[in-house]
This record gives sequence, C-alpha cells and structure tokens, in this order.
Amino acid sequence: MAERPQPLDGDPAASVLVAGASGFAGALAAELVWHHPRLLLTEATAREDAGRRLDRLYPRYRAAVELTELDLEAAECDAAIVAYPHGASAPVVAGLRERGARVVDLSADFRLRDLSTYEAWYGSHSTPGLLSEAVYGLTELNRDAVRGADLVANPGCYPTATVLALAPLARVGLIEDVVVDAKSGVSGAGRGGGERLHFVSVDENASPYGTEGHRHEPEISQELAALAPDGAGAPPLTFVPHLLPLDQGELASCYVRPARQTSAAELAALFEDAYEGEPFVELVSDPPGVRDVRDSNLCRIHVALDGRGGRVMVFAAIDNLWKGAAGQAVQNLNLMLGIDETVGLT
Amino acid sequence: MAERPQPLDGDPAASVLVAGASGFAGALAAELVWHHPRLLLTEATAREDAGRRLDRLYPRYRAAVELTELDLEAAECDAAIVAYPHGASAPVVAGLRERGARVVDLSADFRLRDLSTYEAWYGSHSTPGLLSEAVYGLTELNRDAVRGADLVANPGCYPTATVLALAPLARVGLIEDVVVDAKSGVSGAGRGGGERLHFVSVDENASPYGTEGHRHEPEISQELAALAPDGAGAPPLTFVPHLLPLDQGELASCYVRPARQTSAAELAALFEDAYEGEPFVELVSDPPGVRDVRDSNLCRIHVALDGRGGRVMVFAAIDNLWKGAAGQAVQNLNLMLGIDETVGLT
Amino acid sequence: MAERPQPLDGDPAASVLVAGASGFAGALAAELVWHHPRLLLTEATAREDAGRRLDRLYPRYRAAVELTELDLEAAECDAAIVAYPHGASAPVVAGLRERGARVVDLSADFRLRDLSTYEAWYGSHSTPGLLSEAVYGLTELNRDAVRGADLVANPGCYPTATVLALAPLARVGLIEDVVVDAKSGVSGAGRGGGERLHFVSVDENASPYGTEGHRHEPEISQELAALAPDGAGAPPLTFVPHLLPLDQGELASCYVRPARQTSAAELAALFEDAYEGEPFVELVSDPPGVRDVRDSNLCRIHVALDGRGGRVMVFAAIDNLWKGAAGQAVQNLNLMLGIDETVGLT
Amino acid sequence: MAERPQPLDGDPAASVLVAGASGFAGALAAELVWHHPRLLLTEATAREDAGRRLDRLYPRYRAAVELTELDLEAAECDAAIVAYPHGASAPVVAGLRERGARVVDLSADFRLRDLSTYEAWYGSHSTPGLLSEAVYGLTELNRDAVRGADLVANPGCYPTATVLALAPLARVGLIEDVVVDAKSGVSGAGRGGGERLHFVSVDENASPYGTEGHRHEPEISQELAALAPDGAGAPPLTFVPHLLPLDQGELASCYVRPARQTSAAELAALFEDAYEGEPFVELVSDPPGVRDVRDSNLCRIHVALDGRGGRVMVFAAIDNLWKGAAGQAVQNLNLMLGIDETVGLT
Repeated sequence: MAERPQPLDGDPAASVLVAGASGFAGALAAELVWHHPRLLLTEATAREDAGRRLDRLYPRYRAAVELTELDLEAAECDAAIVAYPHGASAPVVAGLRERGARVVDLSADFRLRDLSTYEAWYGSHSTPGLLSEAVYGLTELNRDAVRGADLVANPGCYPTATVLALAPLARVGLIEDVVVDAKSGVSGAGRGGGERLHFVSVDENASPYGTEGHRHEPEISQELAALAPDGAGAPPLTFVPHLLPLDQGELASCYVRPARQTSAAELAALFEDAYEGEPFVELVSDPPGVRDVRDSNLCRIHVALDGRGGRVMVFAAIDNLWKGAAGQAVQNLNLMLGIDETVGLT
Repeated sequence: MAERPQPLDGDPAASVLVAGASGFAGALAAELVWHHPRLLLTEATAREDAGRRLDRLYPRYRAAVELTELDLEAAECDAAIVAYPHGASAPVVAGLRERGARVVDLSADFRLRDLSTYEAWYGSHSTPGLLSEAVYGLTELNRDAVRGADLVANPGCYPTATVLALAPLARVGLIEDVVVDAKSGVSGAGRGGGERLHFVSVDENASPYGTEGHRHEPEISQELAALAPDGAGAPPLTFVPHLLPLDQGELASCYVRPARQTSAAELAALFEDAYEGEPFVELVSDPPGVRDVRDSNLCRIHVALDGRGGRVMVFAAIDNLWKGAAGQAVQNLNLMLGIDETVGLT
Repeated sequence: MAERPQPLDGDPAASVLVAGASGFAGALAAELVWHHPRLLLTEATAREDAGRRLDRLYPRYRAAVELTELDLEAAECDAAIVAYPHGASAPVVAGLRERGARVVDLSADFRLRDLSTYEAWYGSHSTPGLLSEAVYGLTELNRDAVRGADLVANPGCYPTATVLALAPLARVGLIEDVVVDAKSGVSGAGRGGGERLHFVSVDENASPYGTEGHRHEPEISQELAALAPDGAGAPPLTFVPHLLPLDQGELASCYVRPARQTSAAELAALFEDAYEGEPFVELVSDPPGVRDVRDSNLCRIHVALDGRGGRVMVFAAIDNLWKGAAGQAVQNLNLMLGIDETVGLT
Repeated sequence: MAERPQPLDGDPAASVLVAGASGFAGALAAELVWHHPRLLLTEATAREDAGRRLDRLYPRYRAAVELTELDLEAAECDAAIVAYPHGASAPVVAGLRERGARVVDLSADFRLRDLSTYEAWYGSHSTPGLLSEAVYGLTELNRDAVRGADLVANPGCYPTATVLALAPLARVGLIEDVVVDAKSGVSGAGRGGGERLHFVSVDENASPYGTEGHRHEPEISQELAALAPDGAGAPPLTFVPHLLPLDQGELASCYVRPARQTSAAELAALFEDAYEGEPFVELVSDPPGVRDVRDSNLCRIHVALDGRGGRVMVFAAIDNLWKGAAGQAVQNLNLMLGIDETVGLT
C-alpha cells in the first residue's frame, strides 16, 4: 500500500477493511477511510477489479491502494464497511462478524427487520439469524443504538432523504398519507446498468422508473411505522423514483396530507426541535438544490405548507453517494468506534 | 425575406405574422410557420432584436427572415401568433384582432376566464372585454371550439401536460385530490432569467421552485373544474414545478387519490376512450422519458395504479416548446384555418 | 410492418433493407428511410434485438418496424444500408451485392483503398476483391462517382468533418502540415462501450482518446492525398479525438501550417468556390457550434487566418449521426437511385 | 462573522481580505481562506452583493461570512486576494499595497510585464508603476520569487494549464511552433455573460471562441519567451479556446512541432525532471480527463509522441477555478506567508 497523504492524528482508532470497493459507494467509502485522520484503511477488496489500484480505477480519488480479493479466512480488521449487492452481502457480513469485526453494511440485507418482507422484495436470506443484531443506521434517528452496535444496516439513499424529511411529522402522527416523488442522479443506479445508464440514454432525459414497486418503499414504510406514535403503523405511501441527467444528487419531494390541521409555525417548530444541533441536517428557508449538497454529507430540508392544496410539502436534498451511502457509513462507523461523528466528513 | 426552403403546396391557406419571435417559443413558432406547406410567414417581429435574422439569432433554425419592429397600424395578415410576456400581450392581441387577424396567443392573458383570478396572479388586465371571446386551446379537449375561434389562448406548458394527464379522470369525477410534481427543462423558463438560468446554476442541479404558488396552478384548476361532472368544481391540487438540467422537455407526474375504488382495467379504458385516434397523444405501456418526445408535438401518457399507496399515477411527457407552446399554437392555427391539424408538425 | 406515416409520393424509387438497425447509426438510417417519400423500407435487421420494434427500442423514433434476423439467402431489396461493425460488415455487403442490391456501407470495410493499410488498422479483410468496386462516399467531393456506384463506402464521422474542412486547401496544395483536434459527442462511440460511456464517466468530463493512433487517421490521409495536386501525397497529419459530455455533435478544429503565404480573401474565395450551391455545406462567418447542426445533415464551416501564429484555422461542425453517418448514407443512396440528394433529409 | 468550522491550528499566520468575493473565483478564494487552518478571513467584499452572506449566495459553500462593501481607507489585513475584473483591479491592488497588505491579484492587470502589450489587449493601465513589483504566480515555475513577493499576479486559467504543459519543452528550446486547442467549462467565463452562458446556449454545444485573438495568448507567449534558452523568444503560437457543456474543468491540448528530433524517452525524462516532487502536478500515463481533477488544485499532464504526424502532444487538465484561479492564489499566498504551500488545498 502506498503512503497515506498525511500522518494519522495519533494512534488510529481502528483498522478498517472495505469490501466491494470497486463500486461507486464502496470506492467512496474506501476513499473516505483513506483520508480519515483516525482510521487506517488496511484492505480494500473487489471481486472483478482485484489487482488494480483504486486511484487508477477512479482517477478522481487519491487512495493509492491496490484492490485485493477478499479472503474471509484471513481478514484482519477492527471494523469493516461492506458494499456488496443485496444477497451477496449477507454471507460476507456474517464472515466478518465471525472474525470479530464490527460492520457497516451498505446493502439491503439487514435493513428490513421483517424476514418475510425482505424475502418478498429481495428473495431468500442466507443469514436471517443476524437480522436481530442489526441496527438501522439512519444516524440522526438512531444515534444511541448505532453507538453500541456491532452491525449497522446503512439505509438506502431514498429512505435516507425521505425518512429525514418525514420523521418530524411521523413522530407526532401528522401523516394521513404521503406521496414521495424522488429524483436521483445516475450514480445512485450503480456502476453497471448497461444501456439504460449509457450517456445517450440519460442525457436530456427525465423519466420515472420502478412504478410497479421499488425496493426502497418497504424500507421507508418500516421506518415511518417505527416512528408512529402508539403503534399506529405506517401511513399509506406512494413512492416513485425518477432518473435525472446528473451524476450525484438526490431530491425527495414529499407531499403529506396532514391528519389534522397544522400551521407553518407548528411545522417550523417540529423541524427545528428535531434537527437542532445536528451537524449534517440543515433546515433551509428556500427549496434546496442537489448541486448545493454535492460531495458533502449534508441533508438540506425545506418544509412548507400548501394552503390551497392543503398539504405539507417537505423537500430533502442529499448527495446519494455521501449521506445516501458512503458518507453516512463513515458517520456510523465513527459513532461505533467512539470518534466524533463528523471526523473525516468535512 | 429570403427564399423559402420549399414551395407551398398550392395556394397558401393564410398569411401569418408572428409577434415576439425572438423568445424561445416565438422563434419556434416562426420557424414552424416558415416550413409549413400551407402557411406563408409574412412577418416576424421582435422588440429588442429587430433587424437581426432569425436564423442568425437561433443558428439551429433555418427561417431566413429578418425580424422587424411590430407596427400594429400597418400589420397585414390573416392570422397571427403572439408570443409576448403576460400583460404585454393583451394590447398586441387586441390590436391584431382589430385589424381582422385571427390570433393564437401564447401568453397567459386570455387563459383564465375569471378576471379576478387573473388579477390575483398576474395584475391588472388591459383588455378584459376580450376574455369572453377567447377559447382555451388545449386542442384535444376543445377541438370544436378552436375550429371556430378568432382568438385562442394557448395553454401553459405545465397545464398542457397536466390536464391531458388528468382529463380522463376528471371527466368521471375520479379525482378526490391530486398532487402534481412537475419537472421542466430550462427552455421553459425563457430566454432571460439571469443568473438563475446560467449554465453553472442549473448544471448538476435539480430543485423545486414556485413552492409558494405557481401561476399555472389556477389554470390547471380552472380546466379540471370545467371537466368535472355536475359542476363539482376543481379537486384540491398541489402543484410543484422543478427545474432540471436539460433544455427541452417536461414531465408531469400526477398522483391522484381516487374518489372511489378503481381498477387498472377501468383506467386503461378511460384513457383509451379519451385519446383514441388522437394524432399527438400516445398512451404508452412504460413510463415515458422526456427525451423521447423532444422536438415533437407528442404528449406521451402512462397511467398506473399504485395498489399499496392507493393512488392513480399518471405520467405525461411533452416538449415544452412544442406541445407546450409553439407546436400546439400551430396545431390550433391549423384548425382555425381549416387545415388538417397535423400539417407542419410531423 | 405497421402503416407508414404518409403515402409515398408516387411509386417508390426503390425498396431498401437496413442491416444492423439496432445500433445508433443503423437505427437512424432505418428511421430516415421509413419517413423518406421515395423509398420503401422493406426490412430492418438486427443481430441481438430481432423481434423488437424499432420505435420501442428507440422511443424517439417513429418507424413502427419489427427488427428481423438477417437472412442473406432470402433478402429481397433494390438497395441496402449496412451498419455493421468493421470486419463483420464485409461479408454482409458481399452477400447483398451478390443478390443484386446496391449498397451503402457505414463500416470502415471499404473505405481504405489500400489493402495493407486496412489490415494494419483493422485486421484481415474477408472480401478484398470488392475494394476496387467501392466509391468513397464523401458526397460533396465524389458526387459523380457516387451516382454510378453499386457500392459506396460511407465515410467515418471524423473524416467527413475533417476532409470537408480541408479539401479546399488540399486541392491547391496549401497544407504544409495540419493538426486536427476533433471533439465528439458520445453517440459517435456507439451503443456499446461499457463503463467508458456510462453517464457518470462522461458527465462533467472532457478527455482526449486514441492518442496512440486512431483509425480515422489513415482515412483522412488517404483523402487528403487524393486531393493533393500533382500526386504530392498527404501532408503530415496529427489527429486527436476528444470525448465530450453531449450526445450528438462533432467539431473538427483544424490548424493548417500553410505551404505558402495566403490571405483571408484567398481563403474565403477557395471555400466559396468549393461549396457554392452545396445544399448541406454552409460557410459561416462565426465559429460554428455543434448544437446548431444537431439533427440535421448540415456541415457548417468557418475558416480564419491566425496572423500571429501563422496558421489557417478551419472549424467544421456536423451531427455525427447525420452527416457523419446515416444522413450522408441516405444522401448517397438518393444519388445512386437518381433521386434529388436532399429528399428525406430536410 | 459566524463561527469558523474548526479552530485554527495555533495562531493564524495572517489575516486575509478577499476583495470581489461574489464572482466565481473570488467566492472560492474566500471559501478556501475560511477553511484554511492557518489563515483568518477577516473580510470578504463585493460590489453588488454586499449585505448577502457568501454561503447564501453560493449555497454549496460553507463560509458564513457577510459580504461587505470594500472601504480601502479602512481595510485592515496582512494579506489580500483581489478578484476584480481587469482594469478595475489595479486601483484596488494599489490601495491595498499602500495599506501594507501583501496581495495576490487574480485579474490580468499585473500579468503582462510589457505595458504596451497590456494596453493593446486590455486598454490603459491605471498603475503601471506597480508592474515591476509584480511576480507572475505560476507557482511551480516561480516558487522562489513568489516566496519573497509583495504582489503576485495570479496566472490566467488557460496560461496555467498551457505553460505547465509546455515549460519542460520550452526550457530546452524544443518548440519550433505550437498549436494549443484549449477547452473550458462554463465557470471559466464568469458569473455574468448573459445569453451566451444561458443553460440553453451551452447545453449539447461545443464551439470555438476568441478565434480573432484571445487575451491569454500574449500571456502564454510571454511565459514561453521567459523560459526559452538564450533569449530565443517565444515560438509561434496558435491558441484557440473552446466552450464546453460542463461547469468546472479545463483541458489544454498542445501540439508542438519539435525543433529537433526527440524521443518518448527524452520527453519522459524532461517532464519527470521538471515536476518531480511537485505536490500539485501529476504526470499520468493515460490522457487526463477534466472530471478527475475537479475540485482539486491538481494539474494532470500526459505527454506523448505522435510518430506519424511528427509532433509532441501534451495534454494538461486542471480545474479552472482551483489551479486556474483561487486554488493557485491560496498556493501562492501560502508561500508568501511562509506556510507550506499545500495547506488548505487538500
């Protein structure tokens, strides 16, 4: 491994392995750990690109680390970030846990607490016994649980933006029903994708997809249900993602039919209470643009009341690769390891 | 005026003046009339760019016509397309009507039938007496009225896509309430715009705007009310436009809470009945992308039922400069002049 | 095959087969033939997408034709456009020629008149005997030969722009040496391409490629040599293409060190003489932008003298899919079939 | 002024004023100083946007500093970065120098050492007496002079990339003549620009500009002359910039006709010698893409020999706002203040 760009600030808090570092999210995770002043990136693995250097595969990154093939029998690390596809991730997570590593998993494998829901959307699960161990890592909502967790299921990008947008309303039972019109840049769809993600397919285009049901929908509903007072369950949710001609960025436009009358003042108070002091959530007075949170771990939220239509509108913008994936993974890892959660992310 | 690219098919049906031909919509209108086999473009006017040739101002166009200053006292034409900003348009329309020209107006000045609604959103109206003469030119819904009209108020781009998407539901009273999350390319915002439309502001960005109320909202509500059975009025509407990093194209994502239970089969039948034989409306089995209707007068519509969320979802894609402005203007002009409505548009 | 959008103007001049209609250039060729008022598209074939309809594969196109598998033994057509990759094209062309069809080939297989040059850049040639039959189809330079040809080798996109830019200088021996810095949109690289053409790879990027030698270089040199007076041979050429974040469009920026002193007036006269009356070549007084020739068969050329640097600069802009591929193919086919060369292209 | 994001590392090395912080380059300069661990941003001024907060004007930035009107009589700072337009900058620089501040000027006002050349390209100069004091701040070439300078003229973006690309060749007299085909993202053209920089003008476009002579040409020639051995003067230069549809990034494609025979090995050695140990110049084995240096102070250079065309090709990629403007300004300021030049830039 080549020289790190700067010495660690004192002893490293942990040695970290990133598994699946050749995809968009995994590569950024490795890059963030590489620059992190308290973490030591000891290994970055890839299935197809083993042998290549990460900063050659992604020339915009600086991590001069050669990608290796993952050998679960030999892996030595205090902690790991796993960025495998769903289904393929669970056995890797299980293997790393057996070797004592604390794990943040970027796949969907440990996000859904109900096994049958998982199976309905993703197929069979290889290690259902680990589900109960996993903490859902939407940091701002589950900070204490994340701190003590050995296994964190990092949220999907759409659920991150959507649940942060809706949590202050869900907690007080204000959501009668909700429409979420989500928009994502292309990196959210991953490094593969074939013709659908060819430049010529996406350029000058905008289109809905997943209209027959998107996998992030049950994840959002699960979290809204968890927040609902008195076990009221999740409100009816219509969730439709759209693909936009930009690379990084995600906007969740949420339209809530309120369960009772509310006011701009109540809404402002609910959101301020919810996110006061949060380092990565900013309440903004104008609708946010995704460009403005690019390459940051921020979630910017704007809430407004549509008097004529009678709806509460909440707009949340994130960078899907940062707060929607690798950035939040490092935020969670920081907490698990007793490091200030903003370190390495600003 | 330079040579036309091809001879007219026989005698021209009408001589046409385009007023305001230096903006995006007016320029395309002039270009379409220039190529039209039955129309003769006799004058194209502009306020600031008079003296320049249209095909130099917009090098992608071929209309070799020098822009002139509008002289209402001297204008000679059978028909006119007016592409002025709201407020500035009404007196020009009035002047042209006085000279006997039949007019399609692209501004908002004659779209709203209720004067007080107009004044609330746009300010005072200089020629309210003409309001009753105007036909709202959403061609597919008002074809017969357009045929006999002397003054057509060409719909706004968002209302075109939105009302085409919702009309089959509105007519049968199926809309309990509706959320319209609309997305537009930058040409929809016009040739001015300053820093907000600077390439660097829009590139890699996506953001909502007009969240405190957009002028197309009362226009949509007016048309939904007109379609409602038994004078039931317009359903509650939440309308939020978003600006996307592309030049031409508009997508209206409509989320309807149905007033009663419905089914995929009923929805399919409603839309097929509504648009069977329409030359410019296509029902498609997959969600449409705006890229695919670029530079065409098509509106592509996909309807689907969201079983879990309990909503009817309708997605309509148009090119905001064509079906959303200049294309529909020519479609209307064709009808007014007894020409097949597709001529010059395919 | 579904109904054509409009009746042919009288009897069709020819029945046309398009082989390889699923790639970008082949699909546009089929679309252009489908709309062509004098041609009848009798078959469009594809290797991997047989069974799909062209207007579903490319929803922006209207040709409602089902793609078939090519059966050379059964092909019946007066003429054919072949859009196969180099190497794979030659045997298809040979088979169609045996069945009596006149052919325009979009591949490189018949462009290079010297077999050893072909082999050095592309590998072995399956039907070298056909090379002598082929006419190089840069229409403006070889119009008469194209008219009588049974086999036209359609030029590459870069050679089209570059040779049109340089021909007026090459003919009079003005080129001492030349640097061509070419820029292309992504569609020029084809429908495949994997990660290199993924939206995220191209977006916000610009980079040279093929710096160790690009296959269009010998093609350009061949044509410059053919134009040189007195068999002087081709001038030294440095050719470097760049990939840009746009879909269709190509700009050749040509920097010529002149063999003798020249003047702006001489340059203007040379280009006006060369292209006077050409329907698809426009000399423009400002540097052209690729946006302005998008979706057209135009080549726009600007020539200027750089007094300080002592160079002649020529900038040529085309749409790589139109004048650089399918548009020029139809232009050539028109000539071969005795149709006005602009029909179906405006 | 709001709280800085992190405490300074010990005492600040200097208090810094940024004048003209509302333009693209000035805003980034203020943002970089704001985050700099050794500098204290004491004031950021703007002419038209005084009173607004920088992080509201540019929501992607974090500097919570209110822009003020510049009052030269009251300015108190150890150092300043001035980002005014040429002509307007010189008096501000002079005023700040009079108050004892060390200045990095981003305008062209102090780049050209010959007054008549300045006047020919930019008009009259208000403070020609200061020209002799100014050091041309292409850091890698003038590091020692920058260290001791009170006034640094920060290079233009094109000259930065071009001169870094050509310096190793210029020093040994290898350049017989050179063509520089430069490409820039839109931020290089500044925050104004009107319709030319409207999203719709740039999107899907690529075009040359400044073909009648660009102001960066004499600056490049001046530096090439300064590098030439034995006072040989500047080689003939043809410089043509192009505008591309991307926001940040610049590529200089340089085509050198060598004065004598050279070899790939000699070229590699020349560049390695020139840039060994440079923190911000990277020699790369593949042609660089501008995307990969975005938001960094890096200049990536690839050199290759075109055997057939007989030219040395050098490609240099930078971020025009970083190494091409504000990043290099901070790099220079670091040196002037005795700080390691990479601080605040990685």
